[in-house]
Amino acid sequence: MKDHAISPTRKENYAEWYQEVIRQADLAENAPVRGCMIIKPWGYAIWERIQKILDGQIKASGHCNAYFPLFIPKSFLEKEAAHVEGFATQCAVVTHGRLVKDGDGKLIAAGPLEEELIVRPTSETIIGSTFARWIQSYRDLPLLINQWANVVRWEMRPRLFLRTSEFLWQEGHTAHETEQEAWQEARAMLELYRNFLESDLALPVYCGKKSQAERFPGADETFCLEAMMQDGKALQAGTSHFLGRHFSRAYDIQFLGRQGKKELAWTTSWGMTTRLIGALIMVHGDDDGLVLPPTIAPTQVVILPVIHGDDRRPEILAYAAELKKALEDQTFDKEPLRVLIDDRDLRGGEKFWHWTKKGVPLCLEVGPRELDSRTVSLRRRHQDGRESLESSAMIARAPDLLRSLQSVLFQRAMDFQRSRTQPISTYGEFVDFFAHSTGFARTYFCGNGDDERRIRAELGVTLRCIPLATEQGSGPCFCHENCSGRPVLWARSY
Amino acid sequence: MKDHAISPTRKENYAEWYQEVIRQADLAENAPVRGCMIIKPWGYAIWERIQKILDGQIKASGHCNAYFPLFIPKSFLEKEAAHVEGFATQCAVVTHGRLVKDGDGKLIAAGPLEEELIVRPTSETIIGSTFARWIQSYRDLPLLINQWANVVRWEMRPRLFLRTSEFLWQEGHTAHETEQEAWQEARAMLELYRNFLESDLALPVYCGKKSQAERFPGADETFCLEAMMQDGKALQAGTSHFLGRHFSRAYDIQFLGRQGKKELAWTTSWGMTTRLIGALIMVHGDDDGLVLPPTIAPTQVVILPVIHGDDRRPEILAYAAELKKALEDQTFDKEPLRVLIDDRDLRGGEKFWHWTKKGVPLCLEVGPRELDSRTVSLRRRHQDGRESLESSAMIARAPDLLRSLQSVLFQRAMDFQRSRTQPISTYGEFVDFFAHSTGFARTYFCGNGDDERRIRAELGVTLRCIPLATEQGSGPCFCHENCSGRPVLWARSY
Repeated sequence: MKDHAISPTRKENYAEWYQEVIRQADLAENAPVRGCMIIKPWGYAIWERIQKILDGQIKASGHCNAYFPLFIPKSFLEKEAAHVEGFATQCAVVTHGRLVKDGDGKLIAAGPLEEELIVRPTSETIIGSTFARWIQSYRDLPLLINQWANVVRWEMRPRLFLRTSEFLWQEGHTAHETEQEAWQEARAMLELYRNFLESDLALPVYCGKKSQAERFPGADETFCLEAMMQDGKALQAGTSHFLGRHFSRAYDIQFLGRQGKKELAWTTSWGMTTRLIGALIMVHGDDDGLVLPPTIAPTQVVILPVIHGDDRRPEILAYAAELKKALEDQTFDKEPLRVLIDDRDLRGGEKFWHWTKKGVPLCLEVGPRELDSRTVSLRRRHQDGRESLESSAMIARAPDLLRSLQSVLFQRAMDFQRSRTQPISTYGEFVDFFAHSTGFARTYFCGNGDDERRIRAELGVTLRCIPLATEQGSGPCFCHENCSGRPVLWARSY
Repeated sequence: MKDHAISPTRKENYAEWYQEVIRQADLAENAPVRGCMIIKPWGYAIWERIQKILDGQIKASGHCNAYFPLFIPKSFLEKEAAHVEGFATQCAVVTHGRLVKDGDGKLIAAGPLEEELIVRPTSETIIGSTFARWIQSYRDLPLLINQWANVVRWEMRPRLFLRTSEFLWQEGHTAHETEQEAWQEARAMLELYRNFLESDLALPVYCGKKSQAERFPGADETFCLEAMMQDGKALQAGTSHFLGRHFSRAYDIQFLGRQGKKELAWTTSWGMTTRLIGALIMVHGDDDGLVLPPTIAPTQVVILPVIHGDDRRPEILAYAAELKKALEDQTFDKEPLRVLIDDRDLRGGEKFWHWTKKGVPLCLEVGPRELDSRTVSLRRRHQDGRESLESSAMIARAPDLLRSLQSVLFQRAMDFQRSRTQPISTYGEFVDFFAHSTGFARTYFCGNGDDERRIRAELGVTLRCIPLATEQGSGPCFCHENCSGRPVLWARSY
């Protein structure tokens, strides 16, 4: 029987396996503030890769970054009814402006604020009020803004990366002259997200619309991307909202139109968060820890010098340095390879498992034998065994090995997602499926909100999305007789 | 008489000139939350350049990025007496966890928190408590961490970029085995900052130590970098603190030492903020607006097609595109040139002034005449007049032109700083200097805290630093007879 670096294994206890991968790969930990997390260097380096790639794509599609305040005056939040309804129970409220010492030397809050401030749970309100000032005429449109920021929404059942009271994200906010343009923007960002998830994170997703019950508070339409974790639960990996004119009405985003009349702008918003790191862990990870797609891996190749005694140390380290330099002259995804030499004085096995658990795609061991034969001993993260390669072949083939890993990871996840997507035609089958299994159930559904609520309450299953690919299809609703519906996906979810 | 794009000019009203440059260059604006700012796309793009370059240098010197929570439990702040003393009057306090509607439909804070939370004014406390968990043995040291984050300190007299209640920054936090190593780290980061300010932002600075009164709350020694604005006032551009063992004592950062005994770690912290953008404006700006050093300019070259009528439009645009491509193949500071074509349908003059006020280093106009002669009409941001250059010469010379501008800006600022640094030997001269002038007064000073306080109260002048370059010097104290002192710099400051 094979030993595993992570205990318990996925099969033994998926939830604990997830926590253990995070611990062993040193990605993050719980903060002393309930529900908040500390993102450790390796976790943050993955987030920096996500930021760099996604930020480049957001800019290339014509958006500019800006920064809006952390605090939202309470009166701003009051203006959009559905929005405040959705966030009121999760808000951190700042009420005081300083601390003073009481008689016992304890600090107490003092200086009550004239108007209480809310730590942003999202920024539609503050950005909407700003857009109202920035936009005068149709010539100021479209206005295409993005922000990288922290946001706060209290979580009752926090889990690292997946649900934390503070998380990091990007939030796009745009305003448009016409309904159609805003609609196109919301769809275009959905497509940008899909491409980013599939090409860069190797995460296959279903793109779709949310049902009314699952929509963003204040949106006319919420588009989403749903990924399947290895335990068969769905995870929403990003959303893009068509906000209609709700926020432009609430915050008075008016412009002088081409006909010389005042009109209300059409707005969108869209976001992705640090929960993507949770998705990476749960889709690609295995019983030896994290497995990182090469595009997102902070280090793509780690070189481990194997040194017994001091006599050949300088030669071996020089050989490792030479390999590193040659590999860094190669490119993957138009960037130089990211290579690291781990020359710490630890046992070889310890170092190997260290990087295995962190998910680094390629590991090269170089000792006296490799030095003498100008070879490397290659281990690939996603498959067992080693192979010996001439160093020149290793260098030349490195980009291909990474490319191949990137597509293997995507294909493996795609196969899994497909194998866990089950067409279901009756309510009986549906109940049966979720009693014995997990995954996406694909049904026709008439869209009745009462049924949706009941299914959520009784089975803990939610309508994940109405997939865009099959939006036009129709068939007999799975939970009512004599009623037709559209294809939808159901699942338990994170 | 020459017209200026910015009114008032620096001479007429420096403070208003500053606000107007920010408005005309579209850098930032006041937010509806008192003291907070909205950083607009051009201002944020400058911040992104600062981040990119500084982040690269911080990483290259062995530090890793991580992320710590926004909220600090009140009890954490209580543990380091001097620290809490310094920040208590500026703290945003979160007391409630949700909002509910009262009878009138107004939102009121509800769900009082068990322990009140402070929005971080800086992170020594939360990071110190984390380091205590991360550090077990001397083998875990040094621990070299950096964080990019937002922080909040209420400001009574806010000014965009210079003093805002929320600002963006990086904060480095390190822990070391020995006093000497921590001391070296604090000094090394000061030197890294100096190099960044002088080489990348073209901002000459005096490096020095703060007097006890001006030290960071909880530090044993605060090093700082002081720059001189064009109105003769000083601005602290960055700080690096040697924290001794104050925070390791308060947060119990202990490690098992080489001798097998428990020891307290030595820590440092250091930071730079969005106020650097204020420094860039005030050091390099002129009466036509912002002037950006090429290294930090989001766009280094703007190409303005000059089009009269439609017949030659496609040709001129093609010529502009060709120039852009050729310029982007050139490099400055190891990065491809950042080039933009502004082909909006606006009058040429309007576009020219638009980019002038934004501080773009080089502006190339290309119209029918330039197209026919394969030339460009070049205007450099920091000097009057145009010159006609063959396009091939322009392309080849672009990096040199940028390099030359970068050093001209530095030299100009350095000359100004020197011309406004005045050696002063008696208190009478000192009073006279600050009654009629502004700048750095260089004196010998015995270090008496009462004098320092009196000077601050009576003249509004603070001891900016004890410059490291002349730290060993000594001479007769300027405000006491028969008493010797070290060379120090005084100024009014932002």
